[in-house]
Amino acid sequence: MQPQVEIFSQGEEVITGQTVDSNAAWLSQELVQMGFVIKRHTAVGDNLPDLKQLLLEISLRSDCCICTGGLGPTTDDLTAQSVAEAFARPVSLDPVALEQISAYFTGRKRVMAGTNRKQAFFPQGAERIDNEWGTAPGFALQENRCWFVFLPGVPSEMKAMFAEQIAIRIKQRFTLQADQLVTLRSIGIGESDLQEKINTVPLPGAVELGFRAGADEVQTKLLFPAGTDQEQVKKLVQQLVSSIGDYVFAVDGLSEQQGGLVNVIDQLMQQRELTISVQETASQGLIAAKCIGQPWLLAASFSQSLQQLSDKLSIQFEANASFEVAECIAHKIQQQEGSDLVLVQLYKGSTEQFQHKDQSIVIYNLLLTPSGTQRSEFNISGPQQRKQNQSALLALDLLRRYLQKKIHRNDSF
Amino acid sequence: MQPQVEIFSQGEEVITGQTVDSNAAWLSQELVQMGFVIKRHTAVGDNLPDLKQLLLEISLRSDCCICTGGLGPTTDDLTAQSVAEAFARPVSLDPVALEQISAYFTGRKRVMAGTNRKQAFFPQGAERIDNEWGTAPGFALQENRCWFVFLPGVPSEMKAMFAEQIAIRIKQRFTLQADQLVTLRSIGIGESDLQEKINTVPLPGAVELGFRAGADEVQTKLLFPAGTDQEQVKKLVQQLVSSIGDYVFAVDGLSEQQGGLVNVIDQLMQQRELTISVQETASQGLIAAKCIGQPWLLAASFSQSLQQLSDKLSIQFEANASFEVAECIAHKIQQQEGSDLVLVQLYKGSTEQFQHKDQSIVIYNLLLTPSGTQRSEFNISGPQQRKQNQSALLALDLLRRYLQKKIHRNDSF
Repeated sequence: MQPQVEIFSQGEEVITGQTVDSNAAWLSQELVQMGFVIKRHTAVGDNLPDLKQLLLEISLRSDCCICTGGLGPTTDDLTAQSVAEAFARPVSLDPVALEQISAYFTGRKRVMAGTNRKQAFFPQGAERIDNEWGTAPGFALQENRCWFVFLPGVPSEMKAMFAEQIAIRIKQRFTLQADQLVTLRSIGIGESDLQEKINTVPLPGAVELGFRAGADEVQTKLLFPAGTDQEQVKKLVQQLVSSIGDYVFAVDGLSEQQGGLVNVIDQLMQQRELTISVQETASQGLIAAKCIGQPWLLAASFSQSLQQLSDKLSIQFEANASFEVAECIAHKIQQQEGSDLVLVQLYKGSTEQFQHKDQSIVIYNLLLTPSGTQRSEFNISGPQQRKQNQSALLALDLLRRYLQKKIHRNDSF
Repeated sequence: MQPQVEIFSQGEEVITGQTVDSNAAWLSQELVQMGFVIKRHTAVGDNLPDLKQLLLEISLRSDCCICTGGLGPTTDDLTAQSVAEAFARPVSLDPVALEQISAYFTGRKRVMAGTNRKQAFFPQGAERIDNEWGTAPGFALQENRCWFVFLPGVPSEMKAMFAEQIAIRIKQRFTLQADQLVTLRSIGIGESDLQEKINTVPLPGAVELGFRAGADEVQTKLLFPAGTDQEQVKKLVQQLVSSIGDYVFAVDGLSEQQGGLVNVIDQLMQQRELTISVQETASQGLIAAKCIGQPWLLAASFSQSLQQLSDKLSIQFEANASFEVAECIAHKIQQQEGSDLVLVQLYKGSTEQFQHKDQSIVIYNLLLTPSGTQRSEFNISGPQQRKQNQSALLALDLLRRYLQKKIHRNDSF
């Protein structure tokens, strides 16, 4: 029988709906992949009786529980206290934790507030889980049937601590047989079109198919039972990828994780030692922002209007967005910045069309390369944040398609 | 005593983390505003014993429960069956519901599948909740202490049914008095420092204090009991704001919602008819991206290195980041773009310091204004995405401080 796990989220911001509890979903995905059955997600507020009651319940019915939140320095952070009271394990100061917290502040040239001392107190018998990413250490302990892990609610800290410290402890404690999850990551195609393309490939009954549409991509998820022959997995995935076509930018879970769109682009840019400059309009800085830390992005600019851009670059062009204007801008930027590639995005549409969720704009992406230009054109609608994000993604996707074509030209995959 | 409500979400996609449960957050916000205390959120999968167990638990401990999901036509949609079995209320066909479901399909020129018939069966004694937005009607019933409402999991249907049919029933059934939530929104100060500053102001016992640290800001939340005198509320908030100081950029929940950092900046820029250009480094496009749709942002640029920037602007300066270099760049951009204000951000630190989460960089923000320059300097550490985001926020915050000072110079608030 598979071990049963629960997710426990703590905090007024979760229970009152100020924060959508994405921690619970992230942890569940990780734990399902490891081979757990997830029984429950529960969230309660910063309320001592509620916390104690829930801890007791979980300790009697589940094998493992991952809890997030309530480890902060303030008086409404009650996790350690509620564990202490629920399980009769008085808290005491862990001097190593205190030193780590002080060091965190010293390293950042800040003074530790007195209230942070509270974060170094753990219930009797708890194992400290070091937090290299913030001030709140976590802790773990076995009570009744259940092994509890307490992590901070800040998603970046929680995820890093889970990946680097908890996953290994879980594998040591539990006998797990994980199913194999393969994810086809695509961009520029919707869920229902994906499903239609996939319908042409017969799926074995044991394979579970699911879709997940996020702001940045649509994922097709295939769950293979533990122990499925790898050749079979690979063959089926290849069939699906070729029936979907080059909307797929990465496949995770075969032999490796290929990662997000920018990771895929990064690998190809580095392999080929290319650099790029970018001119943004609708995406307004977001293409550059998504490429944070990538040395191949030499420069990026945003201008509020084509007129402004024309003045700044000292070139004359038509006042309307078109591929011709984009190409003219790209050549000028190539001269100025000296990059191998130039990506220019223009759009057609009024301010009202850009801002109104029920109206659409047309974007023109142009990529200037040493061997000519690549182009793509899209209608984008929705709230302006969506228009901004889609503009950035579809411009980057033109670059990805160019780079992948160059490399995989004679490749069947 | 305020009535207690729980949120119950059902579905494999929620429990396995494929879907982030935003329904629970949305419903909680609505119910808190109505005057409920939210006690728990719980999610379970499509599993009959788990569902029955949870329904029984809730029926004994809460006054109201809103459940979403499990009303679909397929075999894994188990809500009606689990209610029937948990509370010994056998299901029977509701002919009106069946007619509505058929009409839904007829109206869309589609044929109703046989499986949809299942959606017209309700447990004994349930009140039908019509669904004008999809095929799944909901239902409501009282069991033990609790009034249960069952709604579909599709967010658009759930929200429409709650707003148009449930809210009014709730107001008839429960005596509710909504508390007043006031939120002090701050930037550039941590949770523990905030608490120390606030400690100097005595809080009445009836006021609940909480903190929420997000990626973009830290919020201090004050919950006043319904009916608290508005003069008292205002006085206390003013005391707190002045003890925290100008880290506070907005106060929500007094007479109005002042909104996020960019909203605050937007109002002041529009009032004073100012425009701005931005030079980014560490924030790499994110200052511009955060200002999406704001007409006062004329232009923004990012360059990978100071050398590149020097070449592009055709000006000579020291190769090291400093306020002097920033000012020199700002004047040049002011000439080029003709904006009223110029915001330049430079940083000192190697690529490794930028990328490594345990190392820090120093950022220099300089704002060139018609009456001189404003400056701020910060150490920033953490993963590079955090460095990027903090750089963008702290640069925008320098602009906010300049704009607020100009306007509130002789204001006590």
